[in-house]
Amino acid sequence: MDTNELAIKKHKEWNGKIEVISRAEIETREELAVAYTPGVAAPCLEIAENEKAVYDYTRKGNLVAVITDGTAVLGLGDIGPSAAMPVMEGKCAIFKRFADIDAFPICIDSKDTKTIIETVKNISKSFGGINLEDISAPRCFEIEQTLIEECDVPVFHDDQHGTAIIAAAGLLNAVKFTGKKMGELNIVINGAGAAGISIAKMLLAMNFGEITMCDSAGIIWDGNPRNNSAKQEIAKVTNKNKLQGTLTDAVKGADVFMGVSVKGALTQDMVRTMANDPTIFAMANPTPEIMPDEAIAAGAAVVGTGRSDFPNQVNNALCFPGIFRGALDVRASMITDEMKIAAAHAIASVITDQELKADYILPDAFDAKVVKAVAQAVADEAVKSGISRL
Amino acid sequence: MDTNELAIKKHKEWNGKIEVISRAEIETREELAVAYTPGVAAPCLEIAENEKAVYDYTRKGNLVAVITDGTAVLGLGDIGPSAAMPVMEGKCAIFKRFADIDAFPICIDSKDTKTIIETVKNISKSFGGINLEDISAPRCFEIEQTLIEECDVPVFHDDQHGTAIIAAAGLLNAVKFTGKKMGELNIVINGAGAAGISIAKMLLAMNFGEITMCDSAGIIWDGNPRNNSAKQEIAKVTNKNKLQGTLTDAVKGADVFMGVSVKGALTQDMVRTMANDPTIFAMANPTPEIMPDEAIAAGAAVVGTGRSDFPNQVNNALCFPGIFRGALDVRASMITDEMKIAAAHAIASVITDQELKADYILPDAFDAKVVKAVAQAVADEAVKSGISRL
Repeated sequence: MDTNELAIKKHKEWNGKIEVISRAEIETREELAVAYTPGVAAPCLEIAENEKAVYDYTRKGNLVAVITDGTAVLGLGDIGPSAAMPVMEGKCAIFKRFADIDAFPICIDSKDTKTIIETVKNISKSFGGINLEDISAPRCFEIEQTLIEECDVPVFHDDQHGTAIIAAAGLLNAVKFTGKKMGELNIVINGAGAAGISIAKMLLAMNFGEITMCDSAGIIWDGNPRNNSAKQEIAKVTNKNKLQGTLTDAVKGADVFMGVSVKGALTQDMVRTMANDPTIFAMANPTPEIMPDEAIAAGAAVVGTGRSDFPNQVNNALCFPGIFRGALDVRASMITDEMKIAAAHAIASVITDQELKADYILPDAFDAKVVKAVAQAVADEAVKSGISRL
Repeated sequence: MDTNELAIKKHKEWNGKIEVISRAEIETREELAVAYTPGVAAPCLEIAENEKAVYDYTRKGNLVAVITDGTAVLGLGDIGPSAAMPVMEGKCAIFKRFADIDAFPICIDSKDTKTIIETVKNISKSFGGINLEDISAPRCFEIEQTLIEECDVPVFHDDQHGTAIIAAAGLLNAVKFTGKKMGELNIVINGAGAAGISIAKMLLAMNFGEITMCDSAGIIWDGNPRNNSAKQEIAKVTNKNKLQGTLTDAVKGADVFMGVSVKGALTQDMVRTMANDPTIFAMANPTPEIMPDEAIAAGAAVVGTGRSDFPNQVNNALCFPGIFRGALDVRASMITDEMKIAAAHAIASVITDQELKADYILPDAFDAKVVKAVAQAVADEAVKSGISRL
């Protein structure tokens, strides 16, 4: 049975990958009177007096909404809110498995940016955090930014920042492994959707050298009239020499290729034109921009992909469970850039200098040290920067 | 320790009365690849092709949202969305305990009717049903009615219909016990909020004789300029003789008093002016309109209250778990009046003629026969009327 057949069979058996259970014992009238009326009035009144008590008496402090509009689901694109549900439920199951977070899937039946923002904002008080998922670019940028400003709880678009944090973690270890200097790297990012732009911002914030971004039309440059607002914004802080041309031009002499684009985008010939010992993260799903064996044969020192059947998987499960665990643990009001950078360092640090090797640049998602390290680093950073509300 | 102290202690221990767990095994990379990418794409694509498949591959078909705006919580009134959460979680715990339904609490941070409608509509595709809760009258009427029209899944405001269905069930058995004729009853309903108006509509739909409604200002009559739209609507089909006056005037000669008002609204003197063997449902919470022993001393044949420490409790847990179980089981597109009436008969039928007595007019919420009978009757009625989508 191949993975697709097995997935259909298992999904039918599960009939939903999440379930809502009761933590309260309700076996007698007396117990009902404590969990519900009249007893429940007492915690209600305490919360009405002091809203913070909601963290003591309800599940809010451990609860994350996984919210999509179904417009950019996996590599499937705009399949709508109902068809997106199995992915959201899967994400929720991962939240529980890796970080003991209660996550609940919500699919919004609208593609209108303002409607999505209003809807999420209106229900946000029910949750301790909001994980946005699979919302297409460039709408996802405005949606996330507005919600961060207007919601009282952390809002995090995993497709943007999750991938960026893990790619940055991988790059921290790749730099260590190849002996290059972080600040002198020449980095090419191919793909300027949610993930690509977030990777660029993350690497810039961490002072990872110079960045050139490309999309399907080639190098992105400041002032190109075909830039959308997100591309124009990133063009201003990347590609300092205002190069124009193709991806082939961009990768010449580059130390790092980060692909969040499509299969085949990077060829062996292109790898051969890169600097010595290049690092390649070919993260296109399901088929990487270049297969790892081809990249290595063409001279790559380190290769990562999005796939679990190759080494160095950029697996979002390395990041989002721990980042929300840390944020919830200290009731952070938001997830700051500093918390994201702390998460990247924490993921990288799980691999010791002694363990580090070309095919062990990123830890395994099932390594229990990962979520612990990320949660601790994120919580510490939130406390340090004064956004914990404990 | 009194109930309040115990409730605070237990709510702290529970730290939330609901929890979201994973139904999928995710212990290996292979299992992750089935529950999440790449395997999850297969059920997503099937749903994109045929939206009904969402019931096979996700939890939707067993999932009910418990939604409030926190404006009419228990007897506490407008305590806001956060303070309402313990009640909503309690409701969800009851859904699970009594009907194995996965229910999830959502508190909306707005009191604007249009905003609430839009928000619920936008997230409704994630659920198999919507239970509205503790939304103040008269807003609740427009909110429910609009959502019933615009949502693809059943929408049910429990404060209106749950209480009405159980009161109707109790009245069916009270009529049988007192030997009166259903169609000849003279019924007074005191309280014209969500529950009172719904009780009136339910009893009218079931041909329970003549109804006179009262609110805090006395008898409600057609054309009274102080009627809000809901009261004016009900005034047209009640109080046929256009009586004006007080509750004291209304109950003279009445066979039935249904109170959803306040403690002390009905006195022993007033009961003495009622017809022989009157039935009294004094449902004010936490203190009934008249205490059962006082009502009986004044001549009442049957007395019900909202409290678990007296016989004949009008406990909403008798109705909502079974009514949603039945609707979900046959994927009903809505909950019709006929389904509500079927639920009332089902609740009444749990008590056999041999068992029926003055203090056993309504079954106990923990009687497992209740949810089974209600679910079956509701499902059968949905199938009969062609709104099942199985």
